[in-house]
Amino acid sequence: MASSMKEGDAQNACSEPDESTKGFYLQQTMMRIKDPRKSVDFYSRVLGMRLLGEIDVPAMEFSLFFMGYCKASSIPAEDLARRKWALQQPGVLELTYNYGTDTDENFTGYHDGNKDPKGFGHIGLYVPDVYAACDRFEKLKVPFIKKPDAGKMKGIAFIQDPDGYWIEILNEKIIN
Amino acid sequence: MASSMKEGDAQNACSEPDESTKGFYLQQTMMRIKDPRKSVDFYSRVLGMRLLGEIDVPAMEFSLFFMGYCKASSIPAEDLARRKWALQQPGVLELTYNYGTDTDENFTGYHDGNKDPKGFGHIGLYVPDVYAACDRFEKLKVPFIKKPDAGKMKGIAFIQDPDGYWIEILNEKIIN
Repeated sequence: MASSMKEGDAQNACSEPDESTKGFYLQQTMMRIKDPRKSVDFYSRVLGMRLLGEIDVPAMEFSLFFMGYCKASSIPAEDLARRKWALQQPGVLELTYNYGTDTDENFTGYHDGNKDPKGFGHIGLYVPDVYAACDRFEKLKVPFIKKPDAGKMKGIAFIQDPDGYWIEILNEKIIN
Repeated sequence: MASSMKEGDAQNACSEPDESTKGFYLQQTMMRIKDPRKSVDFYSRVLGMRLLGEIDVPAMEFSLFFMGYCKASSIPAEDLARRKWALQQPGVLELTYNYGTDTDENFTGYHDGNKDPKGFGHIGLYVPDVYAACDRFEKLKVPFIKKPDAGKMKGIAFIQDPDGYWIEILNEKIIN
């Protein structure tokens, strides 16, 4: 299969940002999770994120858990302020728990997007040292899709979260 | 269906970030796209992102397009420096084009994750004014999954990108 893209095609498809888009930023990536206890544990203990905020919506039978990187001291103590703040932080994971998936024996889990039907692929974490990070993940028994020295692309890795979602472990050293 | 989560459960599942995770951040969210020209046009013209960098991998028949928010003046001019820089920016979309999907008549498109099998849900953009942003999206004929005043959750909207992926349009005013 060939690419139909020619040099400059992507640049030519770009428009200068409209003035009205000022102040826009990528705030969240939402993924459904089976069990919040397992996911919050994984994203904090293994990956170093904090629980920025929680929003429970009983009327619609779901809860949201916002995970991201920040200093503990920047999280507002008061609940309302904290929930507003969580929605203002950039680059956050919104983990959605639909009530009962953790206890429903018939629930078969979520789709990671990397087998048919494909779509979403992964989230990616920048880490200062891919090999050091992966050595620690191995010790913590995190499942790997690809270790940093496997395959053609040396210096990047893919691990899996408790729902099987892929997480790329990367930095710019792969480009040379 | 009931929630098995009790107050404090998520907080109790949290660990203090390990020292070795210092410098980690959420760099990217990867989604496969059918046609880079359409996606680059949409994310720049409609949503105000810029093309941060491109990486073409002919040996594996794919190209990556990194889209995000930045000033034009911060993008390095030189190609190698630009690609390294693109992988260091936080909160970026990595759009993956597998060669030929744009011209293959048998390609039926990507899975948005919001019908079975479910998983990934959406990306979410913080915007200063949800209603103003959505008025403009309507004028630009962007498809809506939910307009800001539809349903129970007033003040947030969901639009769709050229592949059908959901994009939440939000800010903290929904919390009150």
